[in-house]
Amino acid sequence: MAHTPGNSLHLIADIEGCSGLGDLTLIEATLREAAVAAHATVLDVRLHHFGPGMGVTGVALLAESHISIHTWPEHGIAAVDLFVCGEEANAEAGLDLICARLAGQIRLKRRIERLNSHLMLKSAIDGNEA
Amino acid sequence: MAHTPGNSLHLIADIEGCSGLGDLTLIEATLREAAVAAHATVLDVRLHHFGPGMGVTGVALLAESHISIHTWPEHGIAAVDLFVCGEEANAEAGLDLICARLAGQIRLKRRIERLNSHLMLKSAIDGNEA
Repeated sequence: MAHTPGNSLHLIADIEGCSGLGDLTLIEATLREAAVAAHATVLDVRLHHFGPGMGVTGVALLAESHISIHTWPEHGIAAVDLFVCGEEANAEAGLDLICARLAGQIRLKRRIERLNSHLMLKSAIDGNEA
Repeated sequence: MAHTPGNSLHLIADIEGCSGLGDLTLIEATLREAAVAAHATVLDVRLHHFGPGMGVTGVALLAESHISIHTWPEHGIAAVDLFVCGEEANAEAGLDLICARLAGQIRLKRRIERLNSHLMLKSAIDGNEA
């Protein structure tokens, strides 16, 4: 596990029907467990609670990029993204963990391969120059 | 500016040909200035430097969600995302600021409207129940 740009996947998801979205302890545990599930290494976790009855913003800084979550208990929705680099990383497993922990269902999901086109092009150019 | 899920835009971009990617002070200033450009309020900024000659991971927690950046000076590339909620937010202006500060060009860009479909559906259901 390292800060390398290869095999970078950015997984975006909106999750609805969630519970526990105002529970700071649960949200922190969810971020940390999602990182483990994604085979990622946590460098730091930062959280902010917007007040009683309101939601939470949380980010886990990873050696392999980040996981974020923003919650709105009044709507039962959580917006998450998992951006992980490296062959061993498993963003899908991290997302599954979050859905299970919050007892929610995915409403929107996008998979974006990051950085790869740049690295492939550079590799081709370097190959031609060699 | 507030923690509301309406008009949520998630802007994803890979930027190439960048300079200053190992400069922690520059990266922090870039995150803070991008938040201002996006009309967002910074709650906290967290940074991690991977060591001499290596890149930086940085996240700005916003009242309106987050901005993140991951850099690889050895490749001249930065991976950023700007997730901002609310009618006043301007993620595109934040991205323009980052490109200008790092003197890079966008290679990959994705615009994802977050949460909106959920809120529109819920609004319709609430309307039918009224």
